[in-house]
Amino acid sequence: MSVNRSTASFVDVPRGLAGVVVTDTRVGDVRGLEGFYHYRQYSAVELAETRSFEDVWYLLVHGELPDPARASAFAAETAALRALPAQIAAALPAVAASSVGGAGPLAGMRTALSLLGAVEGFRPVYDTDAGRRRADTLVAAAAVPTLLTALYRLGKGLEPVEPRADLSYAANYLYMLTGAEPDQHKARAIEQYLISTIDHGFNASTFTARVIASTGADVAACLVGAVGALSGPLHGGAPSRALDTLDAIGTPERIDPWIREHVLAGDRIMGFGHAVYRTEDPRSRMLREIAQRFGGPRVAFAVEVERQVEAILAELKPGRELHTNVEFYAGVVMELCGLPREMFTPTFAAARVVGWSANILEQSQDPKIIRPAARYVGPEAPVAVPVVS
Amino acid sequence: MSVNRSTASFVDVPRGLAGVVVTDTRVGDVRGLEGFYHYRQYSAVELAETRSFEDVWYLLVHGELPDPARASAFAAETAALRALPAQIAAALPAVAASSVGGAGPLAGMRTALSLLGAVEGFRPVYDTDAGRRRADTLVAAAAVPTLLTALYRLGKGLEPVEPRADLSYAANYLYMLTGAEPDQHKARAIEQYLISTIDHGFNASTFTARVIASTGADVAACLVGAVGALSGPLHGGAPSRALDTLDAIGTPERIDPWIREHVLAGDRIMGFGHAVYRTEDPRSRMLREIAQRFGGPRVAFAVEVERQVEAILAELKPGRELHTNVEFYAGVVMELCGLPREMFTPTFAAARVVGWSANILEQSQDPKIIRPAARYVGPEAPVAVPVVS
Repeated sequence: MSVNRSTASFVDVPRGLAGVVVTDTRVGDVRGLEGFYHYRQYSAVELAETRSFEDVWYLLVHGELPDPARASAFAAETAALRALPAQIAAALPAVAASSVGGAGPLAGMRTALSLLGAVEGFRPVYDTDAGRRRADTLVAAAAVPTLLTALYRLGKGLEPVEPRADLSYAANYLYMLTGAEPDQHKARAIEQYLISTIDHGFNASTFTARVIASTGADVAACLVGAVGALSGPLHGGAPSRALDTLDAIGTPERIDPWIREHVLAGDRIMGFGHAVYRTEDPRSRMLREIAQRFGGPRVAFAVEVERQVEAILAELKPGRELHTNVEFYAGVVMELCGLPREMFTPTFAAARVVGWSANILEQSQDPKIIRPAARYVGPEAPVAVPVVS
Repeated sequence: MSVNRSTASFVDVPRGLAGVVVTDTRVGDVRGLEGFYHYRQYSAVELAETRSFEDVWYLLVHGELPDPARASAFAAETAALRALPAQIAAALPAVAASSVGGAGPLAGMRTALSLLGAVEGFRPVYDTDAGRRRADTLVAAAAVPTLLTALYRLGKGLEPVEPRADLSYAANYLYMLTGAEPDQHKARAIEQYLISTIDHGFNASTFTARVIASTGADVAACLVGAVGALSGPLHGGAPSRALDTLDAIGTPERIDPWIREHVLAGDRIMGFGHAVYRTEDPRSRMLREIAQRFGGPRVAFAVEVERQVEAILAELKPGRELHTNVEFYAGVVMELCGLPREMFTPTFAAARVVGWSANILEQSQDPKIIRPAARYVGPEAPVAVPVVS
C-alpha cells in the first residue's frame, strides 16, 4: 500500500453514502415509516389534491404558496416561457432522429436541455444576479414539456404542436402531445400525477443536480446531469414496467399462477416494493383513487392484481412489507389519460425538473463544493515506467 | 422540527463531504504533501515524459501498460473511432451556433456528447455485456477531439477538418484544429500536457461521473454530467485565466507593483495555489520544463512572474505555500502550441474524458447506487394546505 498522509483525515461511511447527511434542506422530505412525504411544510398528496401544478411549482421555487395575484402572475410568466427559441426548434429534428440509444427519450431530453442552456445563455448558479438563476430554472422547467412533446412527435413523423399559453401546464402538455385540447378530467389527473412527482427526498438524480450546482455550473449543466442519473436503471422511476406486468399477466384468472411462479423464481414484481416506504406508498394510494374515478375494466384488473399480489406476497414472503409503489398506478393513470408508454418516464422527468430546480436553487446558497474522497487501494506507487523497447 | 424516524440512521460528516471516502479506487491518487500523483501504479509525470497519450489511455482503461503489439492495436482501434457518425456531423452546426452561454465551449461539448451517446446507442453501464461499456468509453473519448475542433471551427465560420488516422491523438487534435499538420515538438508538448491532465484524484467532475454511473446510466450520461461539473467556476481548471494575469501585468517592470497591489487587495492570483498540493504542483514543474524547451520572451516573462509572485507571497503571506498550479504553465504551453484560449478548457476536458472513463468503468463494477441523505430543517410538516379563496 502506498503511504498517503492524507488518509489521516479520511472519514469512513456506509457504502453508497447511505444515510450520510450531505446537506440540510428546506425543500421537503420523505418519512418512510409513516408513509408520508412533503414539499416545504405541506403534504405533497394534499397539494396534489387541492392545488394546481403552477401553485406547487411556485411553492418549490419561492418557499411559500402564492396568493391569488401571485399565482396568476406566475402562471402567466411561466406560460409565456413555453415557446422554444427558434434555434432550439430548428435543432430538434436532428435530436429526435438521434434518440435511439439505451437512454431513449431521456437522451433526447438531455441533449435538448443542454442546447437550451447554451442558447439561453444560462449563467453560473453562483452568479451575483440571484434572480437570474431562478429565472433560468423557470425557463428550463417551462420549456421541457414543449421539448419532450416536440421530440416525441418528430420521432413519429408528426409536426410539433406549438404551446398554448391559455391552458394550464398539465392541459397544455397533453395538448402539445396529441394536438387536441384534452378532456378536463384527464388533464386534472395528469396534473395531480405531475404534482405528486415533483420531488421525493434525496435521490440520486437530485443529488447529482446538487453536486453539479456546488461547482457553480449553470442550471442546464445541473439538470442535464440529473436527467442522466434518472436514466439509470437503478434510479427507478419507469412506470411503463408496471404496465408491462399487467400485460404479461393478461387476464384475472392468470393472476394467481403468474405471480406465484415469478415470486417463487425470485423475480422482482415490477410496481411493488420501495426502498424507503414500509407502508403503502402515499403516491400509490392517491393514484389508485384517481384511476378509480375513471373506472373501467383496466382499472378493475389493476386493483385485482394489487389485491392478489399483496396476498400472495404476505403468504410467500411473510414479514416483508411489499406494497404497490408509485410506478404501479402511475402507469395505469398515464395510460388512462392517453400517454404513450415511451412518454411515461419523460413525463415523470418533466415534473421532477421543478424539484431539481428547487434543490439547485437551495444548493446555490451554499458556496461549498461537494467533493468527497476515494481511497487508493491499487499497487503501491510509484513503480518505474517500463521503457518502450 | 418534524419527527423523522429515519434520522436515527443519519451519519454526520464534514461539509461538502470533505475527506469522506465514497469508494476504493485503483485508478490513481494525489499525494498532496509529497507533490506527487499517479495513474495506476505509475507516476503521471513519468508517464507524460516517456509515453504516448494512447499508451496512457490504454493503461487507464485496462489497468496495465500495453506491450508494443497491444499499443499498436489500441492506437489503430481508437484512431478508427475519430470520425463522427453522419448524424452527429449534420447536427453540429446547430450546436455550434447555440454555444453562447456561460458554459461556453463546454456547453457545446456537453450537447455533442449527449447526442453522440444517443446516436451510438450507448448501453447502461450495468449491461451484461462488459466489453460494451468499455467500447462506449473508447467511442466517446476518441470522438471528443473531433467534436471539439469541429465546434470551434464552425463557430469561426470554418469547415471542420476530417480526422486523420495516421496521426497520433495529440497531433491529430492540433491538425483538426488548424487544418495543418503540426510541428512535432508542438504535438509532443500538447501530448505531454494531455497525459498530465487525464486524471487528478477525486474531484467534483470525477465524482459526478461516478454518481451517475452508480445508477447504471450510460457512458454519455456520465460524461455529460462530468462536463457540466467541470464547467463550474469552483471546479477550477481554466488555464486561460493565468494567461489573462500575464497579459494584465504586461511587462517585467510592472510585475512587482501589480502583484503587490492585488495580493494586498486580497485578490486571488490566477495560476497560483491549489487545494491539495502544499508543494510545487508536479504538473507545473513538468509544464515549465516543456515551456522552457521552446524558450522565447513569453516563457522568460512567465518564469519571471512566477519567481516574483512566489517571493512576494512569501513576504506578504509567510507560511502559506502558494506555488504555481497546473493552470499557469498549461496556459503558457497551450499558447506556445497555437491553441486559442477558448480551447484551453475544452482541451483539458478532452484529456479528462479518459480519466472519467476509467472511473466510470471502475464504478460499473460496484452495483451500489450512490445516494446520500439530506436533513430536513424546514418548518414542521404537515401544515394544512390553505384553501384557495
